[in-house]
Amino acid sequence: MIIVINGKTSDAHVEKVIQRLHEMGHEVHTIRGERRIVLGVIGDAKNLASVPFYAFDGVEEVIRVEKPYKLASKEFKSSTTTVQIKDVVIGGKEVVVMAGPCVVENEKQIFETAQQVKAAGAKILRGGAFKPRTSPYSFQGLEEEGLKLLAQAREETGLLVVTEVMSVNQIELVGKYADIFQVGARNMQNFVLLKELGKIKKPVLLKRGMSATLEELLLSAEYILSQGNHEVILCERGIRTFENYTRNTLDLSAIPAIKELSHLPVIVDPSHATGRWRLVTPMAKAAVAVGADGLLIEVHPDPKSSLSDGAQTLRIDTFAQLMKELSPIVQAVGREFVTSAEDDFERMKN
Amino acid sequence: MIIVINGKTSDAHVEKVIQRLHEMGHEVHTIRGERRIVLGVIGDAKNLASVPFYAFDGVEEVIRVEKPYKLASKEFKSSTTTVQIKDVVIGGKEVVVMAGPCVVENEKQIFETAQQVKAAGAKILRGGAFKPRTSPYSFQGLEEEGLKLLAQAREETGLLVVTEVMSVNQIELVGKYADIFQVGARNMQNFVLLKELGKIKKPVLLKRGMSATLEELLLSAEYILSQGNHEVILCERGIRTFENYTRNTLDLSAIPAIKELSHLPVIVDPSHATGRWRLVTPMAKAAVAVGADGLLIEVHPDPKSSLSDGAQTLRIDTFAQLMKELSPIVQAVGREFVTSAEDDFERMKN
Amino acid sequence: MIIVINGKTSDAHVEKVIQRLHEMGHEVHTIRGERRIVLGVIGDAKNLASVPFYAFDGVEEVIRVEKPYKLASKEFKSSTTTVQIKDVVIGGKEVVVMAGPCVVENEKQIFETAQQVKAAGAKILRGGAFKPRTSPYSFQGLEEEGLKLLAQAREETGLLVVTEVMSVNQIELVGKYADIFQVGARNMQNFVLLKELGKIKKPVLLKRGMSATLEELLLSAEYILSQGNHEVILCERGIRTFENYTRNTLDLSAIPAIKELSHLPVIVDPSHATGRWRLVTPMAKAAVAVGADGLLIEVHPDPKSSLSDGAQTLRIDTFAQLMKELSPIVQAVGREFVTSAEDDFERMKN
Amino acid sequence: MIIVINGKTSDAHVEKVIQRLHEMGHEVHTIRGERRIVLGVIGDAKNLASVPFYAFDGVEEVIRVEKPYKLASKEFKSSTTTVQIKDVVIGGKEVVVMAGPCVVENEKQIFETAQQVKAAGAKILRGGAFKPRTSPYSFQGLEEEGLKLLAQAREETGLLVVTEVMSVNQIELVGKYADIFQVGARNMQNFVLLKELGKIKKPVLLKRGMSATLEELLLSAEYILSQGNHEVILCERGIRTFENYTRNTLDLSAIPAIKELSHLPVIVDPSHATGRWRLVTPMAKAAVAVGADGLLIEVHPDPKSSLSDGAQTLRIDTFAQLMKELSPIVQAVGREFVTSAEDDFERMKN
Repeated sequence: MIIVINGKTSDAHVEKVIQRLHEMGHEVHTIRGERRIVLGVIGDAKNLASVPFYAFDGVEEVIRVEKPYKLASKEFKSSTTTVQIKDVVIGGKEVVVMAGPCVVENEKQIFETAQQVKAAGAKILRGGAFKPRTSPYSFQGLEEEGLKLLAQAREETGLLVVTEVMSVNQIELVGKYADIFQVGARNMQNFVLLKELGKIKKPVLLKRGMSATLEELLLSAEYILSQGNHEVILCERGIRTFENYTRNTLDLSAIPAIKELSHLPVIVDPSHATGRWRLVTPMAKAAVAVGADGLLIEVHPDPKSSLSDGAQTLRIDTFAQLMKELSPIVQAVGREFVTSAEDDFERMKN
Repeated sequence: MIIVINGKTSDAHVEKVIQRLHEMGHEVHTIRGERRIVLGVIGDAKNLASVPFYAFDGVEEVIRVEKPYKLASKEFKSSTTTVQIKDVVIGGKEVVVMAGPCVVENEKQIFETAQQVKAAGAKILRGGAFKPRTSPYSFQGLEEEGLKLLAQAREETGLLVVTEVMSVNQIELVGKYADIFQVGARNMQNFVLLKELGKIKKPVLLKRGMSATLEELLLSAEYILSQGNHEVILCERGIRTFENYTRNTLDLSAIPAIKELSHLPVIVDPSHATGRWRLVTPMAKAAVAVGADGLLIEVHPDPKSSLSDGAQTLRIDTFAQLMKELSPIVQAVGREFVTSAEDDFERMKN
Repeated sequence: MIIVINGKTSDAHVEKVIQRLHEMGHEVHTIRGERRIVLGVIGDAKNLASVPFYAFDGVEEVIRVEKPYKLASKEFKSSTTTVQIKDVVIGGKEVVVMAGPCVVENEKQIFETAQQVKAAGAKILRGGAFKPRTSPYSFQGLEEEGLKLLAQAREETGLLVVTEVMSVNQIELVGKYADIFQVGARNMQNFVLLKELGKIKKPVLLKRGMSATLEELLLSAEYILSQGNHEVILCERGIRTFENYTRNTLDLSAIPAIKELSHLPVIVDPSHATGRWRLVTPMAKAAVAVGADGLLIEVHPDPKSSLSDGAQTLRIDTFAQLMKELSPIVQAVGREFVTSAEDDFERMKN
Repeated sequence: MIIVINGKTSDAHVEKVIQRLHEMGHEVHTIRGERRIVLGVIGDAKNLASVPFYAFDGVEEVIRVEKPYKLASKEFKSSTTTVQIKDVVIGGKEVVVMAGPCVVENEKQIFETAQQVKAAGAKILRGGAFKPRTSPYSFQGLEEEGLKLLAQAREETGLLVVTEVMSVNQIELVGKYADIFQVGARNMQNFVLLKELGKIKKPVLLKRGMSATLEELLLSAEYILSQGNHEVILCERGIRTFENYTRNTLDLSAIPAIKELSHLPVIVDPSHATGRWRLVTPMAKAAVAVGADGLLIEVHPDPKSSLSDGAQTLRIDTFAQLMKELSPIVQAVGREFVTSAEDDFERMKN
């Protein structure tokens, strides 16, 4: 940690800051410049995070040199974390596609979607049973009924299931049916929820909040990791800006940035980010090109009749076409894209 | 609702949209321009919120004319809502000040603060027992022990208590001690929490999310109101922008804007918004000048030793000075500011 | 300047950075921590601004300790700068109001406005002759004809004139008629224009860009100051955020923040910031309460017929009412508000 | 255009709005709902842009249905515009790479860069002679000397030259040396400059402003187009957000969005957008995958010694590697990437 003090500050006041640092067990280097005094603090500054140095007379700036997260950092673990669920590996060579409707509506809808996204190459079925909706008057999901339908679709197709958990009191129920817990953007800093999910042995897909920095996203991941659950998958889903042609602004630079800062796998949700189905395919390609470990895509047999987010949802044929167009990009960046057919063949061999 | 369709769209496709509107029970006016076809939909469009018109061929824009919230709107109730707790009225003529430390640390700290903010004119004691912290390594609050200290401080001083509830599983416990539930910015869209608080008869102070629009804030209030709890106090606490000299950017235009859109009272938190104690007093004055119904201010007997947010916390003498400087502004805008002494006098008379 | 280097960096690479610093004439303090090496650089680091330290192996962060502007800084000059034009002083005790139409339309409009805003207490007449309009199809101003009308209105009323200059090739012409050059938000970083205005002895009103930080605003002021023109007035006019109820988000914390960082006077434009005339009066009050040295307000005899920005423009009676309501706030913050009548009286005495 | 009026508005006030529309030559459809009155306006609403309907009593919302730009729109011209300069075509099948240093420093630097970026496959040499720098104390460019060096490098290599013009008074000089005028982000709304560039027959590369919406970018293009210059190339270079790990947030969804809205070619600048050289290669790949017509990349023989933006600048070997990695992505999206060698071969044949 570096503490910058105004050069006109009295020695007594400078001494008070140094004394506090000594009390906290730190060695201090003092550099006196013309107009400022700089204190360089040696040692792990984590215990200084809550000391309000700005409240000391003369202090102008407090600059953290160490990253505030540890377990999520590349320094803690340099090799990429892979999350394996059955035969699906997220964070490995394969680009894993998760697809399905925004919200589970009925048996026919979810089964039809599941079969067809599987046929097109998806490995994981997404679908909301508990839906966070901006308005209390929007459809809020089928709740347990929706979870059961997801589980049945898994039985039928062999796809894994990812679905959202919105609150601590839903963890047990959702955990009975889901292979991966999804934490939505609005809950990225629901710390009570994160802590509880950290105590469970089940992967968590953590979406970046609408106005969260990457550092905050990694600190939220740290909440889960620090409780013992190491299977965290990050998800970029667009941040809020002044641009309103798109629903959000998909920050694809977050992908290589996270790869510099952390060992956790990271996927991209181009559907929620753009809010327009015509932009989903190009942004999915870009996501793969930039290095994403997977994609989360909204697909519905009939977007016109969907109960949520129809504007950004792909029809099944459009999704199948997207998968075809993705394939050469996947290869171009040296990744793999195991199609369903090959996959079944692999499974038979094993 | 207005639906704008590209003028080159075939009649059959236009008809599909109109048919869907008829199915939903709406009368439709069709206006054919040179390059676009505009459908004007008559009637309450609430049931159309979840119809994905963008998924229909030719649809270019869907424009909501009715506001998406109802109970929170000025149209539903034109007179300002007042929230009365004992002898304190929020949303009335008085500007109500809530003050106290970011987090309850110990008996001495909270008692000393309570007595002195009361002496300076505050009516409500704030203090966190459960603290949402960006980092899992920061101090997370004294939990029930903190709540008990707040309740004792209330006994001693007659101040009311406002404190944060972070999750549904804390509602019962926090409700035992608090006069007002505070929902923090990070939980503004924790819909499960909002719904449960809507079922309780206790006022809720709802903070605007870091990147929430006013419409989203009012929709979150609607979650509480629609469950039957009408005592909602809104709070502007700064939004996230690219400016980094201040922690957030306090959006004071939100106050008169909310007064145009809603009947709910609204207060301002200049401490979290600015993140710098020197800016708290000027921004508090501006908040009163613009029409805020109250203020939420961080005060600590010794900010240098505070365990959270010391940089933005006022010392008690600075707070007392702030209250003095506020007084003429309060009068200038035709509001009232009942000082503690007068207040006691009033109480004696009654 | 502080340079943070990854602790795993080889000594040879660390040495290269140190060597470069020595070459640039700086003394270096090296602090070796567990995981990072910190170089503290002594001396004025201005000549290091263009050295790309991030391009050196191992460098993780480069932290500037000195502010990048000098002449605009509080350190350079601690007393507030006042800009005096005839008998009007901006940055002194008086809160100075500049009012008038967005754009000069015709003789009747500008004369009527001038007389009436003067009667209500304004000291400076605003009005655009060259208008930066987002669309090439919007009215672009009367150009020299508009400037002449402004000058005539000055003759008639004794008001000063502030008007926008959009490009270097307009400086001479605008300078013939204006008392104060206005540089609009879109031109805050038109550095060629700023440099030329720096060579002239006439005050410049510099508006903050739509997404400019305070540091960038002060650096733009520095462009003018460094050429020799010390009469710079800053103007906060709202920044762009995701909120769309208001046109921009007026950042009133910028006022006390600028007062901490700089000696330059700063005024507020609540008209462009909010884009809604009903919000102008409350925000003007807040601006005065927070410490603004003046206001810039759009007024038009008939906003419904105005050729630009009618939605945010006050009628003359509304403006007169605003001035009345401002008066007690001005007093409450210990400022002065010399009404036109008093002013004439003062003038007679002198 | 759609005008929404509060249902409680008196008939007389509604009539005033309708009358104004009639005066402007428009047919009006009135739709009366329960709580609102909606006026649908038939005909090209362009002449209504400057009518301040919000200033009329009762008007709640004014919704533009037609796009405010015309010549830049897809509706005006559905086929993609190609800009051809000598044998280079921008907006065609080929992905065109523009590369070079941020700023021209000396003969050796620019010649070495030119030769090597050409060898790696670039078609256009970039380099600043006039540099807009946030601080007046940063290096501002070699001015005409720099332009001459660029022209000499063109002679030697056959590369085209793109360089920035910052002000109307530089147009003639820059035009003598450049093949493409670059308008920087800070000048996207320097309307005087745009208009003058519209009168010249030379392509203009127009960068999106730091907080400009796509609509504003297209309106700025419209300024150039409406003066008769149809050779406009748009450039996405990152927008300003709260995220600070990257310098800006590259908005890649802007590429397919612009392709929906406009016929103009669009390229991407991943160097300025990210501000970190390690992120340039992945973002360049993503840009091609999403459909960009070209790239603008900063390259310098020795980034450590560069006088500007060294942190985001690629070394020549890194650039050559980037070009190799781009190649399969270019093919994957069905575009072409004519390498220098093939190009020379083609030239020989012709």
